Amino acid sequence: MKIGKQTFKIECKPCIYSTSSIVGPKEMQGPLANYFDLHIKDVFFDEKTFEKSESKMLESCINNLLVKSGITEHDVDVIFSGDLLNQCISSGFAIRAFDTPFLGLYGACSTFCEGLLLSSLLLESNCANQIVAAASSHFCSAERQFRMPLEHGNQKSPTAQATVTASGAALVTRREIADNGIHITHVTPGKIIDLGVTDMSNMGAAMAPAVFSTVSNHLNDTGRDINYYDAIITGDLGLHGTDMLIQLFKNEGIDISKKHKDCGILIYDEKKQDVNCGGSGCGCVASVFSSYFFNELKAKNLNKILLVATGALMSPLSSSQGESIPGIAHAIAIENEV
Amino acid sequence: MKIGKQTFKIECKPCIYSTSSIVGPKEMQGPLANYFDLHIKDVFFDEKTFEKSESKMLESCINNLLVKSGITEHDVDVIFSGDLLNQCISSGFAIRAFDTPFLGLYGACSTFCEGLLLSSLLLESNCANQIVAAASSHFCSAERQFRMPLEHGNQKSPTAQATVTASGAALVTRREIADNGIHITHVTPGKIIDLGVTDMSNMGAAMAPAVFSTVSNHLNDTGRDINYYDAIITGDLGLHGTDMLIQLFKNEGIDISKKHKDCGILIYDEKKQDVNCGGSGCGCVASVFSSYFFNELKAKNLNKILLVATGALMSPLSSSQGESIPGIAHAIAIENEV
Repeated sequence: MKIGKQTFKIECKPCIYSTSSIVGPKEMQGPLANYFDLHIKDVFFDEKTFEKSESKMLESCINNLLVKSGITEHDVDVIFSGDLLNQCISSGFAIRAFDTPFLGLYGACSTFCEGLLLSSLLLESNCANQIVAAASSHFCSAERQFRMPLEHGNQKSPTAQATVTASGAALVTRREIADNGIHITHVTPGKIIDLGVTDMSNMGAAMAPAVFSTVSNHLNDTGRDINYYDAIITGDLGLHGTDMLIQLFKNEGIDISKKHKDCGILIYDEKKQDVNCGGSGCGCVASVFSSYFFNELKAKNLNKILLVATGALMSPLSSSQGESIPGIAHAIAIENEV
Repeated sequence: MKIGKQTFKIECKPCIYSTSSIVGPKEMQGPLANYFDLHIKDVFFDEKTFEKSESKMLESCINNLLVKSGITEHDVDVIFSGDLLNQCISSGFAIRAFDTPFLGLYGACSTFCEGLLLSSLLLESNCANQIVAAASSHFCSAERQFRMPLEHGNQKSPTAQATVTASGAALVTRREIADNGIHITHVTPGKIIDLGVTDMSNMGAAMAPAVFSTVSNHLNDTGRDINYYDAIITGDLGLHGTDMLIQLFKNEGIDISKKHKDCGILIYDEKKQDVNCGGSGCGCVASVFSSYFFNELKAKNLNKILLVATGALMSPLSSSQGESIPGIAHAIAIENEV
């Protein structure tokens, strides 16, 4: 049911039944290391290229999800997946391994929430019972595609974020099929917001206004106060984008600072790891939600969260043609109802 | 409701209420010229780059759809769109112009049917009332991204298809909101099929097995015979891929040749226009369905069609790394029920 201008209330309250995560070596040196299911020891993962490594990570992540859930690929109605690589090849090649219908997404780093959102709506349609939503990114494949070859060793801008090497996947089920009390209750698909930021090294600034738009509209649509949620989790604004988001809400008289968490900030140790403003990439929010936050929900340390994945819908070509960076953010309300 | 292994029966039978199409100069020299709504006189469309031209085409196409439908952007719950460009920038930048939630898709040339499929399921969920599904491609932006700069003037392989310069968009509505009798009754999302074709100049061969898989499963799931449909329309196998598809069905004792139409073959005049095996690109099936076939449905010359958009989920990078070409096809059953 649509409520307000932009939000869908999911009456069937689908369950996020299980999750799976896999990360790279650098992410295993960060503070969330103990929460991840799997990790790769080197960035190649026994493959010859970074892209094949990324695809294999995503495939392993989904396989692990199926094993953890005690189901097979044939029990899944649809797999939603996307990534940052041109033509989303990480997803295409990874999901080739599964005898399951596939619907490819492109939402840049918002992809994981786009997948959760569409999974919820498909379950609400009563057409599907179990859906996988997944996403991945890889530092090395992203660097050479979006920025410079690694061999170039170029210096990063202070506002830059580091693409996370990780995949995350969630199994979303109708409650009659499998239920653990962790439910998706509302979803708010985002509009594209572009305030004219052109700096490809400052994605946080380009995406913060999109988060502000989606979260504001979500709260208006649901009639909820920001205090309804235990946490409002973005993925990924980084340090600079987070400052902007806090300021944008402050302008409206709202203090979001105590509720707000950012996956890009959480995944690395800012002081010990050289990542400037934090992490980014489709795989960041996917893996951090699928490990740390899902664990916090299961442990009931968190009971009501708003997960807001953010995407920058540019390409190196659009930026070289002088275009600004359109941002988007999709919000998913996840509530513990056991 | 899921029926069989892979098909969703859409109980609410959403309506394809209106469509919009825009094409380039070469497409206007083809046999379907009279069916298109809009066309651009030169490939730049008063922009400085091919990519900006493609984005403007898509934006114009959606604007035209809203005008034809007598609605505004605020009446649309969600826009689904995708394209072939890296990071789907045609869609991102085009849909930035609309104050409407956006969900980006990547399904290569299967994108338009992926959008129709998800539109149907969102309407079935009772969450949305009116959804736009759109897709675009542009010969010049695709050539330089996937193949060679146009200035290179390279010769095409006989099995190659020419990327169509076109956008198409459809407004899918709940019947209570707007109804013309043209309904989506079933959708079959495709699995990725990869039989090892590695020739980037022979996409038809890579995608024909995916069409065979999806159509066979659709017929099994629905219990329908191929003769149930007035036409089985692919987008886009081209001449060579069509031959393969006919052979694949022939091996099963089924003659699909009299039912089968291919948007990539229909859009150009094979004898007069230099396009080798025909057209391709997200915009081909989007524009040909949104013009010629939608007209045939309205005129009741066709009453039951299966629209099957096909995608090749590779990238130039995956091919240069020796990978084969994964194919996918999504099928949409569209029936005249006035």
